[in-house]
Amino acid sequence: MTVPSDITIAQNTTLQSITLIAEKLGLSTVNIEPYGHYKAKINPTDVFAMPAKSKQSKLILVTAINPTPAGEGKTTVTIGLADALNRIHQQEKSGERTTVAIREPSIGPVFGIKGGAAGGGYAQVLPMEDINLHFTGDFHAIGAANNLLAALIDNHIYQGNTLNIDPKQVFWRRAVDMNDRQLRNIISGIGKTTDGVMREDGFDITVASEVMAIFCLATDLSDLKQRLGNILVAFNHRKQPIYAKDLNAHGAMAVLLKEAIKPNLVQTIEGTPAIVHGGPFANIAHGCNSVIATRVAMHLADYTLTEAGFGADLGAQKFCDIKCRLSGLTPDAAVIVATIRALKYNGGVAKDELTTEDLPALEQGLPNLMKHIENMQDVYGLPVVVAINQFASDTDAEIDLVRQACLSRGVEVALTQVWEKGGAGGEELANTLLKLLNDNSHKPSQFRLAYDSDNSIADKIRTIAQKVYGADDIDISRSAMAKIRRLEALNLDKMPVCIAKTQYSLSDDTRRLGRPTGFDIHVRDISISSGAGFIVVICGPIMKMPGLPNRPSAEHIDLDDKGNIIGLF
Amino acid sequence: MTVPSDITIAQNTTLQSITLIAEKLGLSTVNIEPYGHYKAKINPTDVFAMPAKSKQSKLILVTAINPTPAGEGKTTVTIGLADALNRIHQQEKSGERTTVAIREPSIGPVFGIKGGAAGGGYAQVLPMEDINLHFTGDFHAIGAANNLLAALIDNHIYQGNTLNIDPKQVFWRRAVDMNDRQLRNIISGIGKTTDGVMREDGFDITVASEVMAIFCLATDLSDLKQRLGNILVAFNHRKQPIYAKDLNAHGAMAVLLKEAIKPNLVQTIEGTPAIVHGGPFANIAHGCNSVIATRVAMHLADYTLTEAGFGADLGAQKFCDIKCRLSGLTPDAAVIVATIRALKYNGGVAKDELTTEDLPALEQGLPNLMKHIENMQDVYGLPVVVAINQFASDTDAEIDLVRQACLSRGVEVALTQVWEKGGAGGEELANTLLKLLNDNSHKPSQFRLAYDSDNSIADKIRTIAQKVYGADDIDISRSAMAKIRRLEALNLDKMPVCIAKTQYSLSDDTRRLGRPTGFDIHVRDISISSGAGFIVVICGPIMKMPGLPNRPSAEHIDLDDKGNIIGLF
Repeated sequence: MTVPSDITIAQNTTLQSITLIAEKLGLSTVNIEPYGHYKAKINPTDVFAMPAKSKQSKLILVTAINPTPAGEGKTTVTIGLADALNRIHQQEKSGERTTVAIREPSIGPVFGIKGGAAGGGYAQVLPMEDINLHFTGDFHAIGAANNLLAALIDNHIYQGNTLNIDPKQVFWRRAVDMNDRQLRNIISGIGKTTDGVMREDGFDITVASEVMAIFCLATDLSDLKQRLGNILVAFNHRKQPIYAKDLNAHGAMAVLLKEAIKPNLVQTIEGTPAIVHGGPFANIAHGCNSVIATRVAMHLADYTLTEAGFGADLGAQKFCDIKCRLSGLTPDAAVIVATIRALKYNGGVAKDELTTEDLPALEQGLPNLMKHIENMQDVYGLPVVVAINQFASDTDAEIDLVRQACLSRGVEVALTQVWEKGGAGGEELANTLLKLLNDNSHKPSQFRLAYDSDNSIADKIRTIAQKVYGADDIDISRSAMAKIRRLEALNLDKMPVCIAKTQYSLSDDTRRLGRPTGFDIHVRDISISSGAGFIVVICGPIMKMPGLPNRPSAEHIDLDDKGNIIGLF
Repeated sequence: MTVPSDITIAQNTTLQSITLIAEKLGLSTVNIEPYGHYKAKINPTDVFAMPAKSKQSKLILVTAINPTPAGEGKTTVTIGLADALNRIHQQEKSGERTTVAIREPSIGPVFGIKGGAAGGGYAQVLPMEDINLHFTGDFHAIGAANNLLAALIDNHIYQGNTLNIDPKQVFWRRAVDMNDRQLRNIISGIGKTTDGVMREDGFDITVASEVMAIFCLATDLSDLKQRLGNILVAFNHRKQPIYAKDLNAHGAMAVLLKEAIKPNLVQTIEGTPAIVHGGPFANIAHGCNSVIATRVAMHLADYTLTEAGFGADLGAQKFCDIKCRLSGLTPDAAVIVATIRALKYNGGVAKDELTTEDLPALEQGLPNLMKHIENMQDVYGLPVVVAINQFASDTDAEIDLVRQACLSRGVEVALTQVWEKGGAGGEELANTLLKLLNDNSHKPSQFRLAYDSDNSIADKIRTIAQKVYGADDIDISRSAMAKIRRLEALNLDKMPVCIAKTQYSLSDDTRRLGRPTGFDIHVRDISISSGAGFIVVICGPIMKMPGLPNRPSAEHIDLDDKGNIIGLF
């Protein structure tokens, strides 16, 4: 079966008006603010003033094994599964509703290698061009808030520096939603006396800004403002912390985010309401859509599917220990997405040989999936279903091998073909999930966190490393240790930790695939996102400002004669 | 009479739904794309497919004397006059419509000294908070297009530089919509080998980007793309020009601007449809709202009021010689806004003594107004009316003095009080304007341009300096002359010129108020906006990246407990 390109499918889909999509969630036109005919912002205050759709609204996290170059399709499965659930609700006339709460894509990568990031095939959120470009302007608003704070810091120093800020100890960087390696490291403030104060400086891509993490963790506007005020921006010459609130920056920053903070409503190809809002990095931040979006979705639907960045070791761990901890959300189940190809890759097969049946390699790679299942079940207390995102090259023997291994942990495997077939390709998974959630034979969620945030920073890191990654121990560099002591002295150590390590391995070594053992996690550096409310633990090189490739996709993204976008995959 | 603050008036106004505002222009919901309930984008393709409201749609330029610290209120008069005209149309049941086409404000200055820029008092466009902040995201889109081009240039150099671009001859700067002096001059690309190529670099505020000028001069999407491709971004090592199209950047840039290019529809306090779109600098660019917005307005209304930046020597001159020349628009009349206070300031009175009657000083300052009247009449062939934006301190004798002077040139003076009274305060001006446009006793517009763009660059500059500014001659620096020769050699000299000089004087010397004589215009530097289609002639220090003041207004802009914006004036 030949599936056309994402943009071709998207442009050939007849969209429903956003008013109609809102109605499916019980929202009238006064509760939404349309952005064109197919996008809207939802007013959360209106939503929370309404009775909830269900007292037992279910939250399902879609996560994955460690990502591989073969691709797993986590977002695609999330979207297709929602469509499948809505098909079942309609067939059964249950009156139930499913929605998805997922992340907004960043513009930067669209012009690099990646192309779009709004699902794929027949499981996409639409209008995909808008969602992949400026959408409703949220990321630009986040960038503006980030850069207003930066301008206020440097202006303060320039105008006399009454706070005595040490220009060598300004941590706050500027942001732009663009892959632009040229801005990673800059010297700003050069030129004449009136042109600022010269110092080392740099830009991150907007999604890596702490403002993005705050935006996604804030529970409402006033919480947002308070968190913005708590951003640690610099030290003064006496090594005392300077916060955004010391510069009176947080009020104006909140003003810039006032509209952005309202969740965005769009639709899937099959007309399922989709809430797409926020999108922080999953290494230096927690990698989930906004808390407000998840809450709005749960208030309006019986089933909310949400996702977290990268594999379960990074994404699901942070979803639970950061997002759920800070917001009080409790998930009801986890779907772990895997592909036979990716499991074989984890078993040592080269990328271009993944289409050949290879049971020994699959057996080698399977422990990666098993470890993530164990984590979800044992560490976090969540019921689990495994979704195999099926490819034509997958053999029955391979699928059966995965199925048997999962059953040994009491976990069912469902095949999905949502990329080729949309919601129809997700019905097996949807039925398996519904049984898991609603059938008395299954143990319900006994959600718990992996560690107590009052523990010491080293303890918290060690717990995650041992429990979730399977490490023997942790090894903290001398400079990281000094920073930990500094945070302890400042009483900033009682927050959850956010570990930034490679997404490709359970360890901090990209090359150790499958389920590595006998390794330590090496903590190289520590920083704090005190506004967001977590300590960032850096265990490897982390890129906060990507570059463009040799042949950027920007070179072939274009408008045709009718003004339609072409070349955006 | 006490007039509350702009934001208080704005927040106490009951807005009409944007659908209703669109209907006043004959647009149905399918022709507009709502952005919330009170803003929309107008689809220009739809508009131009409809029959025009009037075959003799009139375009009126609102301009002003040279600006002073006392303030003239040009935007306020433009908006109030539109409200006044619509009042008259309704009273007379003429079936006629008036709309305004004005510029969008930049976010940057909102957080600096200036506060908002969407009119004032009872003559504002609403929702003023949105318009002053992200609005519909146009400026962020322009910034993104600007910065994509920058990233593509540096990426090209980094990835092997097959175009042989000289990193010391990259003219294209980055952009951010923020007052941030720290970014005026930077060194980018520092760090490791993989972090780009080190070079001098810098940021301009987004409104100063050539993309903004192009955006405002483009006639449609395909013209936009072509102009973007023609941006001269650098020279190669052989001193040959490199254009954006050589980097295949223009298609993707146009994609980023695809939605932004649609004009924005909002409303005045009195419910007049207002089209607010684009806003380039009025020194290094032409200072007018987009051509598409003006055309859409004229297609939908009988009378379109538009404005241009700064005084008539900069704004009106460029409106005529750049915007109208390149687009084929022909204005029907000019309104010149003045205040008694500003005329006295031009006559040498100190800022804090302007409320005292001073006929001799007024007589000294009046020639400034008279020169702008002469320019509009004699240079550009336009019928003129003078609008005195009235203040309580203005005396009858002062007003009479201005009236008599204007009558000597056959020009009527009308008093306006739109700031205090809205449209009701603009009826005298509206009636005077209608008479000027429709009464056979008045000579209709014989619009003409000031110079032939095929003339030499020096000739074009000299013509403007002598005809419009009243200069004796021009004096071109040696380095500017070298650049002129370079443009001639590249065959890039047959474009209109865009003179960047102080807005405070008809001369290039800020201190020479009134109507100076016996001066030369000093050309210090030349650059080209080859995509926009004009040659920039720099006659003084031009700030393309403002800084924040000692006490930025960002410090008191905030959200109240209900989530309303406070402190935005």
